[in-house]
Amino acid sequence: MIPIISVVGKSEVGKTTLLEKLIAELKTRGYRVGTIKHDTHGFEIDKPGKDSWRHAQAGSDAVLISSPEKLALIKRVDRERSLDELLAYLGDVDLVLTEGYKSGDKLKIEVSRQARGQELLCREEELLALVTDQPFDLDVPQFEHGDVAGLADLIEKEYLMSPKKERVSLVVDGRDIPLRTEFAAEVVKAVVKALVTTLHGTEGAKRIIITLENEGEGGE
Amino acid sequence: MIPIISVVGKSEVGKTTLLEKLIAELKTRGYRVGTIKHDTHGFEIDKPGKDSWRHAQAGSDAVLISSPEKLALIKRVDRERSLDELLAYLGDVDLVLTEGYKSGDKLKIEVSRQARGQELLCREEELLALVTDQPFDLDVPQFEHGDVAGLADLIEKEYLMSPKKERVSLVVDGRDIPLRTEFAAEVVKAVVKALVTTLHGTEGAKRIIITLENEGEGGE
Repeated sequence: MIPIISVVGKSEVGKTTLLEKLIAELKTRGYRVGTIKHDTHGFEIDKPGKDSWRHAQAGSDAVLISSPEKLALIKRVDRERSLDELLAYLGDVDLVLTEGYKSGDKLKIEVSRQARGQELLCREEELLALVTDQPFDLDVPQFEHGDVAGLADLIEKEYLMSPKKERVSLVVDGRDIPLRTEFAAEVVKAVVKALVTTLHGTEGAKRIIITLENEGEGGE
Repeated sequence: MIPIISVVGKSEVGKTTLLEKLIAELKTRGYRVGTIKHDTHGFEIDKPGKDSWRHAQAGSDAVLISSPEKLALIKRVDRERSLDELLAYLGDVDLVLTEGYKSGDKLKIEVSRQARGQELLCREEELLALVTDQPFDLDVPQFEHGDVAGLADLIEKEYLMSPKKERVSLVVDGRDIPLRTEFAAEVVKAVVKALVTTLHGTEGAKRIIITLENEGEGGE
């Protein structure tokens, strides 16, 4: 799975500014970075009068604008998506940083400033790091607001330099089915590879996705 | 596959207006509709100063904004994506309508107006229908600009009422691998189902996705 780290903190402590610096630092180091911003209020992003805006106003459930440099998607949803569900949209990135999601289940970097109080939002065990102008008596790496390089070193060490290996995942009707034993994972990997190598055009495969959909009324 | 139909025509013939009416008509009939707008010029969609805009400016490769009602994604790409590649972003829709993509390989509805000339952009064999104020001597269904219900009837009949059945797809390193024979498709379906039914939590599965990633340097 692509690692997800949430940058949280009280308002006006400098979360977006930290994210800007951290994104730039990680990009300089050659990583592909995705970001997720939590929005509770509803938001407007497209510009009234544009063709894509008119599609959405007419009732389109998902509007996509595609150009050679950029694509944009605006999609209605019936419920808030979890961070893990959102990963699929971000695609081929090395790391995802979120702004907000303090009640999510991902490790967090809390940004703290003395001027905004001495309490933290997160419990010690949720914290990957603190970015702060006041020391906390916690067993958590702590960085000054300006030490983005130090924070990036930590992220790189913990998340981005782990040895590469083969991964297998199984999703059934939108739910991750854990392959609890090494044996189950190995069986799925071996069978999928055996199946696929019998087909033309699959030489040197690095990423195999099989989708099976039963559109009928009953389950299998 | 989700059907994709491209609405094309010269400038100022009323493509966006037709799309608005067609989206509204199909929504009234209970279908989930996605739309894709082709943009050759590069476009700006986010608002300067917003947190998500700041993420993108700092270098984020993919910025996502998520709320309980809506999600938005702005993503850098290194090349124009094909319509089939874009489908994955739109998700769970019954039909996709595109504005533009006249050189794409999808069936087309051409919008034509006498005031903009008598020639068509499309060849007869590319056309699903014409929406026009002048008759053409072609073996293609033709509708007046106001007859959106007639056009929706045609789309419904051709694309949305086909019997539901089991589908299987295989994607290797981003490319669709055609399962050319019924036998190949049946073998993949049978093996995937057999694998999955041995695992807990998979009862009544309607959609199974297995992903196998080899992150090492060499292929398998």
